[in-house]
Amino acid sequence: MNSSTTPHAPPSPSSDAIEPGAMNGAESLVRTLVDSGIEVCFANPGTSELHFVSALDRVGGMRGVLGLFEGVVTGAADGYARMAGKPAATLLHLGPGLGNGLANLHNARKAPTPVVNIIGNHATTHQHWEAPLTSDVEAFARTVSDWVLSTQGPKTVAADGARAVQAARAAPGRVASLILPADAAWLPADRPAPPLPIMGPAKVSDLAIVQAVTALRGGNVTFLMRGDVLRGRGLDAAGRIATATGARLVCDTFSPRLERGAGRVSVPRLPYRPAPAIEFLQGTRTLILVGTQAPIAFFGYPDQPSELTPRGCTALTLAFPHEDGVAALEALAEAIGATGPAALTPYDLPALPQDGPVTPEAVVRTAAHFLPEGAIISDESLTAGFTHYRMFETVAPHDCLQITGGSIGLGIPMAIGAAVACPDRKVVSLQADGSGMYTLQGLWTQARERLDVTTIVYANRSYKVLNQEMEFVNSGQSGPTARAMLDIGNPNLDWVHLAQGMGIEAVKVETNRDLISAVRSAFATRGPRLIEAVIEG
Amino acid sequence: MNSSTTPHAPPSPSSDAIEPGAMNGAESLVRTLVDSGIEVCFANPGTSELHFVSALDRVGGMRGVLGLFEGVVTGAADGYARMAGKPAATLLHLGPGLGNGLANLHNARKAPTPVVNIIGNHATTHQHWEAPLTSDVEAFARTVSDWVLSTQGPKTVAADGARAVQAARAAPGRVASLILPADAAWLPADRPAPPLPIMGPAKVSDLAIVQAVTALRGGNVTFLMRGDVLRGRGLDAAGRIATATGARLVCDTFSPRLERGAGRVSVPRLPYRPAPAIEFLQGTRTLILVGTQAPIAFFGYPDQPSELTPRGCTALTLAFPHEDGVAALEALAEAIGATGPAALTPYDLPALPQDGPVTPEAVVRTAAHFLPEGAIISDESLTAGFTHYRMFETVAPHDCLQITGGSIGLGIPMAIGAAVACPDRKVVSLQADGSGMYTLQGLWTQARERLDVTTIVYANRSYKVLNQEMEFVNSGQSGPTARAMLDIGNPNLDWVHLAQGMGIEAVKVETNRDLISAVRSAFATRGPRLIEAVIEG
Repeated sequence: MNSSTTPHAPPSPSSDAIEPGAMNGAESLVRTLVDSGIEVCFANPGTSELHFVSALDRVGGMRGVLGLFEGVVTGAADGYARMAGKPAATLLHLGPGLGNGLANLHNARKAPTPVVNIIGNHATTHQHWEAPLTSDVEAFARTVSDWVLSTQGPKTVAADGARAVQAARAAPGRVASLILPADAAWLPADRPAPPLPIMGPAKVSDLAIVQAVTALRGGNVTFLMRGDVLRGRGLDAAGRIATATGARLVCDTFSPRLERGAGRVSVPRLPYRPAPAIEFLQGTRTLILVGTQAPIAFFGYPDQPSELTPRGCTALTLAFPHEDGVAALEALAEAIGATGPAALTPYDLPALPQDGPVTPEAVVRTAAHFLPEGAIISDESLTAGFTHYRMFETVAPHDCLQITGGSIGLGIPMAIGAAVACPDRKVVSLQADGSGMYTLQGLWTQARERLDVTTIVYANRSYKVLNQEMEFVNSGQSGPTARAMLDIGNPNLDWVHLAQGMGIEAVKVETNRDLISAVRSAFATRGPRLIEAVIEG
Repeated sequence: MNSSTTPHAPPSPSSDAIEPGAMNGAESLVRTLVDSGIEVCFANPGTSELHFVSALDRVGGMRGVLGLFEGVVTGAADGYARMAGKPAATLLHLGPGLGNGLANLHNARKAPTPVVNIIGNHATTHQHWEAPLTSDVEAFARTVSDWVLSTQGPKTVAADGARAVQAARAAPGRVASLILPADAAWLPADRPAPPLPIMGPAKVSDLAIVQAVTALRGGNVTFLMRGDVLRGRGLDAAGRIATATGARLVCDTFSPRLERGAGRVSVPRLPYRPAPAIEFLQGTRTLILVGTQAPIAFFGYPDQPSELTPRGCTALTLAFPHEDGVAALEALAEAIGATGPAALTPYDLPALPQDGPVTPEAVVRTAAHFLPEGAIISDESLTAGFTHYRMFETVAPHDCLQITGGSIGLGIPMAIGAAVACPDRKVVSLQADGSGMYTLQGLWTQARERLDVTTIVYANRSYKVLNQEMEFVNSGQSGPTARAMLDIGNPNLDWVHLAQGMGIEAVKVETNRDLISAVRSAFATRGPRLIEAVIEG
């Protein structure tokens, strides 16, 4: 990349010797994206995108992965980038196609994850007519994007593509949306554009580190962390600081990616509900924020606070999300002389459950017990996940990806992206049934690409989190209509049929004995599988 | 409704004697919506919407229909309004939940269909925090809405609800989005608001009718029609004019609702592709537009026109979409003395196909043959639908609902809405497989509500329309990646499993003999069924 940091650097090798007009706009864009490091395109194309699709073959270097629904495409791009550390492209069809992908782009934006959306539009000559698919594509894109550009023509599209990648990769990661009119794709282009420099995380000021040192001297410090600091060097530095000072480490309730398991630094999760979260932070004098903001409730409730920082506790930002929290923690550890080893989580495998009807705890226990080393958990277990987060703490080291923007339907697609990014690692997709239905089409992509994903569906046949919320908000005795709106039984979903309908080997388990057998078998075998764990009550 | 057309009309009976503060904002809104004629709420609620859900029981008069995905909810609202002639409400969860529903709201907007969206948002006290689900809900709503309002609090929400219904019902039908902060739902309200007057279609000017009379005298007239004029009195008047003058009747390629079949006036459909459409209109001196615009190509293509009005043909607007085209056609018929009966389509049942492998034509032929009188066709058959539109012309009288905004994934939800609106009529959902996958979750709602819908899936295992487009745009020999992006086989979808997974009785047919048997049986029985018609090649 260094050669591209000066404006007059020579074009990158692959764009050498391209005669102007020898390629069309789509080809110049695809080649630019490949030169800029984009290796995968998750796609759900339509007519306007066919020249881009054709260019994938002509240019080479970018893998196309088809999703049967755009929410699958965007969620997969999110999961991919979380594990690959760089963006994938998506390919989407005008405003409504992008519309279908917005919910998971919202999750990506809240991660934040770098994503490069390529969104087809009508040819510029066709845009001013009121055709059926005519819409304000930019307006759709702006709802979730940090960067939006509608390219003006085939001569500029390559440079715009390089800018889109640059925008997406700016720290800490952004959603960049490039709108591609069909004629900008089909008309002759000049040549690909060289990659642009990546704007990495900003250095944390020395003052912030000095303030954190002072806070640590005062005692009763809690670090609230999110982002890169929850893995690798950042996690290690945080662990050394905690071990040396007695400071507490906590992570946001929802984080894009955590390294967890035996031999790593333990980081408890901030509770989901306002009162327990405040209680959890009680006694903290200084809350040091690393890659996150002062904690805010997921929802507002009558007579409950939105701000979760307890009274008497001061929040201090060590690193904003766009700053280099890893380096800041390392500098802080050095400043306080925390050079000794961090306390690490022991290896303590949960016992397998006794036989009996399947419970959420039995599912987590069994998955934790058999979890292969280096597995990636795509966690959309919701109610079960809140309860059992701790059980994965002492098992084989693994990554955990969580739903970051509160928009359900990320789990199955995120598992796709993780498996594409890390083909040698087992992906375990812990999936609530209600939220799984939003993007179940992703199972087909798992089958087509033969991805090594085991999906375990918690089939409790209810929007359980909503039933809990209904109690929680105390909005009264539920009548029959309200009960029906929160009940997804009647008829029960049959996930084995649904999975088989998309080419996935699947099994339903109702006892812990069958659960254990199914999980052991799935984790020991490569390829996509689904286990429907039927949970009564 | 008349009592509400004066500003000082007394409150409607149901809001009499309500003490201020006796109901919360949600209850005052639900009662207002019911008083304004909203009988059905298609819902996919989350935490922020629970007070609205509770209010459905406390107030009564509004049926709640749960969808497991928001695209099902919005598409069902579209189908409902097309058949009921008035809007349903939707209930959606913040920006991302609305995001999932945008594609079918785009279709509704292009119909245009009246829809009243109720979109929950964070409590006003919580909105300025960066919580996971925080987003610019209005920005999401504006992409597809003609009317957007974020209500300010519990005292105004009832009046805002009445305005939302009024906005949605303004001719020819609009998408109205009312954003409901959670505290506007849970805090004490005053009372419900009375219904507001409905702004019906505008009267067509006498000049427009005079111009049409003159055009008819000149000969070689084609009427291009869309909207209400394609059924009932409008269709009859158009037929009388055509019979009396020799003018030709044509409808838009995609119309929200058409009355078709034996004993009705035949209206051929404008061809989909630009060149055939122009050819079809060749020789027309005056193109009289009724409820539509001068024809525009679906997509722009290299070296092909966007405007489909042939050279030498003048377009003349008799009625814009917001105007009363039905009255205009009746006035025109009277002005030219077209009082004699219109030529009507004969009853001529297509023969059943010979046995052999299933073809798209065999599916249409069989469905047409057995079609029950008064059936409603939800047509998302795409490639098969273009070819075989004519075969439904001479069968039992029926309604046909088409996909209006080019955003696929409307068929299954639209069938839900039509079946809820018309419980005594058989709904036949002709569904391409690729597009069916976008909102397959709707099958579950069909099962839960025991809707009388027969879905016939054309299982050609390909995005066939895209393969045709790929040839059409001549963007080159397709390579393996491009072929893979347009192929939805490998693995094949098994629609019988998918349907059974959602509680729908289903059968796969591969021969015409089995097809005939399955269609006959499904059409003769009430309740949801799915037939997967496997079409090779």
